[in-house]
Amino acid sequence: MLTISNRGNQMPASPIRKLVPFAEAAKKKGIKVYHLNIGQPDIETPPEILDAVRNANITTLEYSHSAGNESYRRKLVEYYKGVGISITPEQIIITTGGSEAIQFGFFACLNPGDEVIIPEPFYANYNGFACAAGVNVVPITSRIETGFALPPIEEFEKVITSKSKAIVICSPNNPTGYLYSREEMEALKQLCIKHNLYLFSDEAYREFCYDGEYVSAMHLEGLEQHVVLMDTISKRYSACGARLGALVTKNKAVYDTAMKFAQARLSPPGLAQIMGEAAVDLPASYFDGPKAEYLSRRDLMVSRLNAMLGVYCPNPGGAFYAIAKLPIDDSDKFCQWLLEDFSFNNQTVMLAPATGFYGTEGLGKNEVRLAYVLNLESLSAAMDCLEEALTVYPGRVAIEKKTAEAAK
Amino acid sequence: MLTISNRGNQMPASPIRKLVPFAEAAKKKGIKVYHLNIGQPDIETPPEILDAVRNANITTLEYSHSAGNESYRRKLVEYYKGVGISITPEQIIITTGGSEAIQFGFFACLNPGDEVIIPEPFYANYNGFACAAGVNVVPITSRIETGFALPPIEEFEKVITSKSKAIVICSPNNPTGYLYSREEMEALKQLCIKHNLYLFSDEAYREFCYDGEYVSAMHLEGLEQHVVLMDTISKRYSACGARLGALVTKNKAVYDTAMKFAQARLSPPGLAQIMGEAAVDLPASYFDGPKAEYLSRRDLMVSRLNAMLGVYCPNPGGAFYAIAKLPIDDSDKFCQWLLEDFSFNNQTVMLAPATGFYGTEGLGKNEVRLAYVLNLESLSAAMDCLEEALTVYPGRVAIEKKTAEAAK
Repeated sequence: MLTISNRGNQMPASPIRKLVPFAEAAKKKGIKVYHLNIGQPDIETPPEILDAVRNANITTLEYSHSAGNESYRRKLVEYYKGVGISITPEQIIITTGGSEAIQFGFFACLNPGDEVIIPEPFYANYNGFACAAGVNVVPITSRIETGFALPPIEEFEKVITSKSKAIVICSPNNPTGYLYSREEMEALKQLCIKHNLYLFSDEAYREFCYDGEYVSAMHLEGLEQHVVLMDTISKRYSACGARLGALVTKNKAVYDTAMKFAQARLSPPGLAQIMGEAAVDLPASYFDGPKAEYLSRRDLMVSRLNAMLGVYCPNPGGAFYAIAKLPIDDSDKFCQWLLEDFSFNNQTVMLAPATGFYGTEGLGKNEVRLAYVLNLESLSAAMDCLEEALTVYPGRVAIEKKTAEAAK
Repeated sequence: MLTISNRGNQMPASPIRKLVPFAEAAKKKGIKVYHLNIGQPDIETPPEILDAVRNANITTLEYSHSAGNESYRRKLVEYYKGVGISITPEQIIITTGGSEAIQFGFFACLNPGDEVIIPEPFYANYNGFACAAGVNVVPITSRIETGFALPPIEEFEKVITSKSKAIVICSPNNPTGYLYSREEMEALKQLCIKHNLYLFSDEAYREFCYDGEYVSAMHLEGLEQHVVLMDTISKRYSACGARLGALVTKNKAVYDTAMKFAQARLSPPGLAQIMGEAAVDLPASYFDGPKAEYLSRRDLMVSRLNAMLGVYCPNPGGAFYAIAKLPIDDSDKFCQWLLEDFSFNNQTVMLAPATGFYGTEGLGKNEVRLAYVLNLESLSAAMDCLEEALTVYPGRVAIEKKTAEAAK
């Protein structure tokens, strides 16, 4: 019999996308669905970078260098300089989205059976890339009570074995919005040096820090050989569909190895590189607009959530996500119920159950992730739906009980 | 110590790109280098498909569906119908180049330690994807004396073990240009059915068949569940830099599994999908021009090669590659020498040593791959260089000796 691979069987389906059929069914019934379930912002892609493609003089759209066009890598050096990161074009590999940067990092550094430690809840697709690479994810739980701060370093120390090879960090964080402090980043640095671990740093949301200082893994002195930066223009310039990212590292062995994987797939997307190159020439003030917009949305959403009876949402310092604790029995059931059995003024809201972001079975059952990627009006209407839904949801948990449980 | 992964160490560097520094050095000396080493055609990308991107009304460049835009998949159904392949949009996953289709196929179907059988010489990057997936490539030698026809089926039977899971076929072939006959494809079908093997069919060069009939793996009745088609627009529309391909299969388990890998990387490139969709609307006559051009180039190059003393080049039936046997001691040395120590009227030619396309150590030492991707004038000048080079190359082998060896 023809068989599917074991890794194919083990490969997780996307927790964000598994509710899609229920959303489609709701829409067919004429219900408006507010999508807070996925990190696809409604912010415009800067017209200047789309114009760069429109005006490009292309006769034959050729393969680029496997590391990406040198002209784009030179531009990125400027960009990184602006965020306090000093690198050369020869330390950058342009990738097909941040996804491919994660993949190259995992494949270049990790053997099947190796372990990678990740504070949970974490971006669910790390599971997918780990599965493809045969690598085991070891989660360390961060908690809503602390706003999803870095768990104590002792928690990391407890799980470190000879198989531990790397830590993955994402700051500002998807899915929690938490912005790691300099102290936390320094603590991770000490840990990586002590135990010879790579620090894979996913910095997709760098531009969206609202409270406190942005600290890149590349700002950590003495950790140069450990850091593999995974980056993308998807969120920075609201260009998710371009599929353009970068792997950046000063570790030459990692770079050279990642380049072999890059050569096998020939080159990153050509038109997107034109966009990326033009984006570096946007004025620094470009980010003011989107950042202010996200901040207003955060403030609206978080205050609305915390005003709901039995709901708690820590105030995220960055990115455009938050995780909220709801007075519900089961977030997977609740999110499906929102689409299947509920509407309010013929509208409903789509959320991501937090269970998909935890590596530890059973966690996240009373939490959801919300992406504040819609304008204030839509976001407000979505909060109206959620508020109403929580009053009528059959699986609502009594507040007393919930509070009692939280105190355990 | 921080270590690189084993697969990273084993990952082959691109045999096509390893001579690049020598080419750069030659250019710095003012020598013109004719690039016959890489499948990057000088044919124009159809302006209509670039215009489609220029004229697209994009406000926010969003993620597409992980399988690619449905509108594009519907268009592709039309395209495939035109080449005698009947499929539905739900049997297509749009990929980032043909490369990603190969990767998804390997990852979805093959376990580490599994074996995939490939007639050699073969596209070198299959090695890379096999290495990433932990899969072993078992080569079956096809020979220049038969024009690189399919090796006898007994040769396949000899190497089939319980670990054999798939055969990879590429027709018309890169690097040999060989176009597999219906009889050969039928023989592969019987073999795949008998031994429960997948048939991974790389059909990147479908449009460029000059002699004989094009037979897709998807034309083989009764093999539907075994076939995984790996496709790309790179060569079809001379749009290598777009990075747009497709995995096509009627095997639902393979499709669903490949989709999990597709979801992990979110979506294929957005702007390229606009190109791909517009390309299906090009008139059928579009291919007449490029095909006639490649045919003239093939005829010129192959006749020039065979007119050189001691050179033999079978006439390839498709694609835009040929492998020629040269009276030389070592193709790696020769190709490097062409760049480092030789010039003719201040010009030289860059070729790919065939060694990189063989899985069996030691084969291809007196063979090179030539890509006829340059216009007739440049191709003719490149042949002048090669002809002169063969008369002065210090490692030239006496013709008598070569003939005697060939007869062994």
